[in-house]
Amino acid sequence: MAYASDIEAVNAELVEVATLVGLAMVSATRALLNSDNDLAQSVIAQDERIDILTADIEERCVDLISAQQPTARDLRILIGSLRIAASLERMGDLASHVAKQARMRFPNPVVPEDLRGTFEEMGALAQAIVTKTGQVIATKDLSLAADIAAHDEEVDRLHRELFRVVLSPNWSSGTEAAIDITLLSRYYERYADHAVSVTRRLITIVTGEPYVGVSLTQ
Amino acid sequence: MAYASDIEAVNAELVEVATLVGLAMVSATRALLNSDNDLAQSVIAQDERIDILTADIEERCVDLISAQQPTARDLRILIGSLRIAASLERMGDLASHVAKQARMRFPNPVVPEDLRGTFEEMGALAQAIVTKTGQVIATKDLSLAADIAAHDEEVDRLHRELFRVVLSPNWSSGTEAAIDITLLSRYYERYADHAVSVTRRLITIVTGEPYVGVSLTQ
Repeated sequence: MAYASDIEAVNAELVEVATLVGLAMVSATRALLNSDNDLAQSVIAQDERIDILTADIEERCVDLISAQQPTARDLRILIGSLRIAASLERMGDLASHVAKQARMRFPNPVVPEDLRGTFEEMGALAQAIVTKTGQVIATKDLSLAADIAAHDEEVDRLHRELFRVVLSPNWSSGTEAAIDITLLSRYYERYADHAVSVTRRLITIVTGEPYVGVSLTQ
Repeated sequence: MAYASDIEAVNAELVEVATLVGLAMVSATRALLNSDNDLAQSVIAQDERIDILTADIEERCVDLISAQQPTARDLRILIGSLRIAASLERMGDLASHVAKQARMRFPNPVVPEDLRGTFEEMGALAQAIVTKTGQVIATKDLSLAADIAAHDEEVDRLHRELFRVVLSPNWSSGTEAAIDITLLSRYYERYADHAVSVTRRLITIVTGEPYVGVSLTQ
């Protein structure tokens, strides 16, 4: 059946892009913490490839919808894949934003010494969440959704904690660093949100539930 | 022809939502500048309605694609409408973020006196860009695209200017205000970006060009 293999091929591309946006955030975090300008540049350059791949996936989905009369289930998969591609594209942008922040301040470090641990955690959580999201795309195993939700909550907690730190009277790194930290923290938080959104889409694909009602912890 | 009228109905809903997200940003800006907590609350409450309306549009698009065998052109319109609905939904979120910032600091003002003018301009630009975007949705008149691009550039310019102001040695409003201004400014900037993205989608609907290659100033 040609159609099933086409849908498989789209799914394999989504898995590949999920791997790329995962690597992008891991590298961006490393570039940020090590003030590694070359690595930052390569993340920024790679983002163009992610944009092209996601545009290609979107085009293939539209072609498949238009060339065949998909069943309701296949249509749900293809439309869901369109949305997942859009979220992954945005996750690539956010990794690139982190890398741009590192590049902008190079050779100076962006993250003050006492916040390095928090950003290492943010990076590790981003990696965990995108790895599991990629696994859900590949296997449709929804049992990982609860983990993804837990990682997202942890990212939100760190995001709030970073606000407290930069606004505390003990903050001694100045306004520019406070703004950098706030924006960076928001990039990680949005990145995790998009991973959650991808997972919710996958739940609608598997269960047929409408997206608005879907929660990761049911 | 029932199908054409269904597509018309989807389009009318998109126009309505564009109006709502425009009003939301106008009200959020007013709530922000007047420290008006009731108005902020109403923007936040209205956002749920925008979410429901956009989810409804998405569902109708999917139903139309699955119930009929749309022509290539109708499919392009329906898939484009799905994407436009997603961007409008996000614009509603961003207006709600602005309102939440006003609510969080109430009864204190968020925007220092000397930046009120800049945020009035941001609000006016957001209103202009979304009004014109709504007109393009309604009429498919692409001649407004250049205006929309110009407004977006102006928003980007103000966004950069606000960074300069909060980072200047003359900044005397403290770190919290600097962070508030940075985040607010980013919400307006993203709002305008989404309006541009909606307009690019409309260009692909009208011309059939692929989205990645579309520019507003051709």
